[in-house]
Amino acid sequence: MYYIGIDLGGTKIAVGLVSEDGVIITKKSVPTLNHRMPAEIIKDMVDTCFLVIDESGVSISDIASIGIGSPGFVYPPDGVLVYANNLKFDNTCVRSEIQKSLDLPVYVENDANCAALGESVAGAAKGAINSVTVTLGTGVGSGIIINKMIYSGTFFGAAEIGHHCIMVDGEVCTCGRHGCWEAYASATALIRDAKRAVLENTDSLILKLANNDSQAINAKMVFDAADENDETAVCLVDNYIKYISEGITNLINIFQPEILVIGGGVSSRGERLLKPIIQYVEKTVYGGALKTDIVMAKLGNDAGIIGAAMLGKAN
Amino acid sequence: MYYIGIDLGGTKIAVGLVSEDGVIITKKSVPTLNHRMPAEIIKDMVDTCFLVIDESGVSISDIASIGIGSPGFVYPPDGVLVYANNLKFDNTCVRSEIQKSLDLPVYVENDANCAALGESVAGAAKGAINSVTVTLGTGVGSGIIINKMIYSGTFFGAAEIGHHCIMVDGEVCTCGRHGCWEAYASATALIRDAKRAVLENTDSLILKLANNDSQAINAKMVFDAADENDETAVCLVDNYIKYISEGITNLINIFQPEILVIGGGVSSRGERLLKPIIQYVEKTVYGGALKTDIVMAKLGNDAGIIGAAMLGKAN
Repeated sequence: MYYIGIDLGGTKIAVGLVSEDGVIITKKSVPTLNHRMPAEIIKDMVDTCFLVIDESGVSISDIASIGIGSPGFVYPPDGVLVYANNLKFDNTCVRSEIQKSLDLPVYVENDANCAALGESVAGAAKGAINSVTVTLGTGVGSGIIINKMIYSGTFFGAAEIGHHCIMVDGEVCTCGRHGCWEAYASATALIRDAKRAVLENTDSLILKLANNDSQAINAKMVFDAADENDETAVCLVDNYIKYISEGITNLINIFQPEILVIGGGVSSRGERLLKPIIQYVEKTVYGGALKTDIVMAKLGNDAGIIGAAMLGKAN
Repeated sequence: MYYIGIDLGGTKIAVGLVSEDGVIITKKSVPTLNHRMPAEIIKDMVDTCFLVIDESGVSISDIASIGIGSPGFVYPPDGVLVYANNLKFDNTCVRSEIQKSLDLPVYVENDANCAALGESVAGAAKGAINSVTVTLGTGVGSGIIINKMIYSGTFFGAAEIGHHCIMVDGEVCTCGRHGCWEAYASATALIRDAKRAVLENTDSLILKLANNDSQAINAKMVFDAADENDETAVCLVDNYIKYISEGITNLINIFQPEILVIGGGVSSRGERLLKPIIQYVEKTVYGGALKTDIVMAKLGNDAGIIGAAMLGKAN
C-alpha cells in the first residue's frame, strides 16, 4: 500500500505519495496563498493529491490513506484543523471536505509531530522505539515519539517543548511567557542577541556581513563570522550552543529516548554545532552517562510529508 | 488475584498485600537498617512478605506477583537494583534472590515511578490515561504515566523531572548541574532560601519559630510564618510557589496530561499551595487554556506500596 502525506504550510502545500517504509515516490507542491478561505486551500490540496496520484501511476485502490500535517492546533479524532495563526482555518473539518472528492481515510496532526514521525519512520531516528525531534528555526518545534507513535497528550496539544522555561523571568517569548527555550534556542533568539551584541562591538565581522545594517543580521552571518573567529560571534555561538544544550539535557533527563534529533535551519551547521552540544550534554545529563544518541535530522523538509503520510500507517 | 508491593526505602521496608484495584489489604514495615549487606535486607523483605501473607489469610496461589519500588537506578528487565546512594545494592538481582524463597514473578522499578503508578491506579490520577506525579520533598521525584503504564524511557532512567533546568546558571543542584527544578522546588530549596533571608530579616517570625537558630529552620516554619503574614515568609512562599509553578507549566506544555499530581511533604499544605499554583499555571500555560487538572496526591506513603504491587498487573 501507499500513503499520501500533505505538509500544509503558510507558504506552500507539499504533497507526496509515500511507500510503506516512508520513501517519497512522487511529490508536488503549490503555493498556499494563505490569505484565501479554507475551501480554496482544501481544493488545491485535493487537486495536488490527484496530480501526485496521476504522475505516480498508482491506483487509488492501492492508497491506504491521506495524512495532513498542519501548523497550529488540530483535533485529530475529528480530522479538524482548529486554529493556526498563519492560516484562516477555524475549526475546519478538513477530513470531511477532502472526502467529498477522495474516498480515503483522512488523518490530521500538528506539523511538528509529523516531522518527528517522519524522522522516526525513515530518517535520523529510524528504528528507535522512543525519540524526540526538535526543530530549531524561527521558532522551536518539537515532536515526541513513544512506542513508535506520536505522543500528543490527552488534549492533542502536548510536545510544546519550545515553550518549556529554562530561565525564570528571562527573555520574553512569542507565547507571552518569559524564559521559554524558544526564546533562547531559536534562530530568532540568536539574531536578537547578535543585534544587541553589535551595539557594543561595532567592529564585529557580523556587522560587516550585514553591510553595517544591524537589522539585516541573520543566523548564517553569526555562524559565518564565528567560523572566521570573530570574537563577538564566537561568544554568541558559544552561548547559543549552551542554551540549546541546556534544553536538550532537560529533554534527555525527562524522556531518556534512544535518539534525540535536531532539525531546522541551524542543523545545517552539522558537526560545528553538534559536537559541542554533545560535549555539553555529556557534562550536564543526570546520572553521569549520556545514553541517548544526539543526531542531526536527515529528511529536511520531506520529514513533514513522510510523517503526515505515515499517520495512516500508525493509526 | 492479589499483588504484593514492597516500598524499599533508606529508612524502612514497607510491604503490602494489594487487591486488583489497588487497595491495601494488609501492610507491615520493618526498619531497613541500610548499613547492612543486600542479602540481609532481602531476607527481611521476604520475611515481611510471608508475615503479610499469613496475616491476610490469602493463599500464595492467589498472589500474582511481587513488585519492588527502590530508590536509585534499577534495571527492570533483569529485576536488578543497580545502585542507590542510601543502600548497598550493587547490581543486585533481587528477583532471583527473592525467588529462592517465594516462587512468584518479581518486578522492580524506581520508587518515584511506583508512586506515580500508585496514584494512577488508586489515587489522585485514578482513571487518567496520561498523568504525571511530582513529589516535592527533600528532593523532587517524579513519574510519568502514559497509556496507564510507567514511561521510564529507553534506558529505564527517564522521568528525572527534578533535574530539568529552569534557571540556566542558577542554584547548584545535588546532581552537580545548575538551575535544576529540584534546586528551586524542593523543601530543601525553600529552607536554603529561608536561611539566607533571615540573615537580612532578623526580625522574621521564621527565626523565632526556629528559636533563633537559623540552622534549625524547616519548611513547616516558613509556611507557618507565612500563615501569620510574616513579610519575609510570605515573600519566600510566593517565590517558592512561582518556582513550583514554572516547572509544572513546563510539564503541562510538554506532556499535556489529564492530571498532574503534586505529592510529598509540602503537599500537606493543600489549597494554600494548590490554589496559587493553579492560578500561576493558568497564566503561563501554552495556548492560553489550562486543560490539565492539577491536584494534590491522595495516597501519601501508600502510593509506593500500591504502585510497586501494580507493577505485576501492568506487566
